[in-house]
Amino acid sequence: MIENVTIIGTGLIGASVGLALRAAGFQGEVEGWDESPGALATALDRGALTVALQARPDEEPRRPKPGLIVLAGPVHSTLDWMERLEKVVGAETLITDVGSTKVEIVRAAMRLFGRDGAAGFLPGHPMAGKERGGAEMAEAGLFREAMWLFTPFRAEQSPVEREWRHWVDRFGARTMNMDADRHDELCAWVSHLPQMLSTAFAALLEERFGEEPEFAAELMRVGGRALRETTRLGASPYNMWRDIAMTNTENISATLLALEQELSYVRENLRTPELREEFKLANRFRSRRD
Amino acid sequence: MIENVTIIGTGLIGASVGLALRAAGFQGEVEGWDESPGALATALDRGALTVALQARPDEEPRRPKPGLIVLAGPVHSTLDWMERLEKVVGAETLITDVGSTKVEIVRAAMRLFGRDGAAGFLPGHPMAGKERGGAEMAEAGLFREAMWLFTPFRAEQSPVEREWRHWVDRFGARTMNMDADRHDELCAWVSHLPQMLSTAFAALLEERFGEEPEFAAELMRVGGRALRETTRLGASPYNMWRDIAMTNTENISATLLALEQELSYVRENLRTPELREEFKLANRFRSRRD
Repeated sequence: MIENVTIIGTGLIGASVGLALRAAGFQGEVEGWDESPGALATALDRGALTVALQARPDEEPRRPKPGLIVLAGPVHSTLDWMERLEKVVGAETLITDVGSTKVEIVRAAMRLFGRDGAAGFLPGHPMAGKERGGAEMAEAGLFREAMWLFTPFRAEQSPVEREWRHWVDRFGARTMNMDADRHDELCAWVSHLPQMLSTAFAALLEERFGEEPEFAAELMRVGGRALRETTRLGASPYNMWRDIAMTNTENISATLLALEQELSYVRENLRTPELREEFKLANRFRSRRD
Repeated sequence: MIENVTIIGTGLIGASVGLALRAAGFQGEVEGWDESPGALATALDRGALTVALQARPDEEPRRPKPGLIVLAGPVHSTLDWMERLEKVVGAETLITDVGSTKVEIVRAAMRLFGRDGAAGFLPGHPMAGKERGGAEMAEAGLFREAMWLFTPFRAEQSPVEREWRHWVDRFGARTMNMDADRHDELCAWVSHLPQMLSTAFAALLEERFGEEPEFAAELMRVGGRALRETTRLGASPYNMWRDIAMTNTENISATLLALEQELSYVRENLRTPELREEFKLANRFRSRRD
């Protein structure tokens, strides 16, 4: 039985994991580590943690209590923590993460935790979030109905892994195992491309109309649900997305190029019957969802 | 006082206008004209009309009762009806429309209804809709909080026009007057570009993965709100959008090209600090909305 969960990074996802554990009936200790005293205080205050410890990136890390470690920062922070923890944790501990890309994390995990006697490592990716982060936005129900993907590189599951998967089920998440390469390709299409698109669209409007307050104000007043939805993710923070862009560059680049080509095809066919075919394909895609 | 409203085209918008009139306390006749007996029957059944008349495109139109005529079909149908009605209506009637583009409609209205003794014409555009049309989707509250734009080409308002604007206010819509050129440019950015983008994205996914049912099914399962929102408008019907693409080609084309260029800039900068600037601009745009 897991008696201690150490959450490293107590922002939106980390604090939500703490809240979800408590809501699901977890009775053990939930330790939060973060560099930011403010993030820790908020997470503690929200009831996401039982213990808050300031992490100092320039010092050798503490040895976490045996149990589960959840790395809940952006991808590069997770990669850094994997290096640091390798020296201080052993087979009694399972490390999992919540990173949005998995190929680089799996590669590092196999290198750092592949040998006998090393800590276990279960790469994970809860597909939940909000366009604004921070522990103050955390919710116990953040993972309800969300997909939580795992990209395990070992077939056998340790008892701690089985128990953790069980908690994730109790958070209300749907889980799926997937190969890391396929994960990164799939997420480029369903998550990273929509993000880049929304950022590009919102940035374009800002560039074009930011200096024309009258036109910008009219855009806002006139724009309805379509404008709101298409630019919603434009509020997403750079620091998280930089790491995703850095660790899934090829896939994201391929999806962006494909979309640019599709848009230019639409543009060239605004007055031809080809536009009808384009709408038909799009209608067919949407009807798959029902 | 308007005693008769003739709604030509009893689909989603036309039937919703009928329902909104009734809900707002309109006591007069609401006549619906449509080529499709099914659309008429649904609108009548929903309580959107008091009288349903099948319109026959190959016959000289009936002379509508004096009062208000709402042209509630796609833009080309509106342009056709303007030609047909010009012969049978006079100064006792105000014609308004709900078309999504306004430059061509205003041009036709000035030609057809510009002389003394002609019917009045108030070009209008309620920015409300659903990704699926039809009278069965109609709602009295469809226009609540929505923007209803007018692009009048005459300064003076007739009593019928004042009364119609009053009804639109009572539907709960926000109204604004705007020049037709500016309308079409603004709507290209906030409505037509998001539509083409969503169609292109959904069509791209269908082309790429429609033949790979396993991957397509995984896309669906894994894709969350971002995928759903980005492809939602992919369900929109071609027949309405063909007319918009045909009557606002230059503006839509310019916005598509600008977005293609922005996406290619993002693609080329996935690993450079320029991506930070792009996120900053997008963040700034989104913060304007709050």
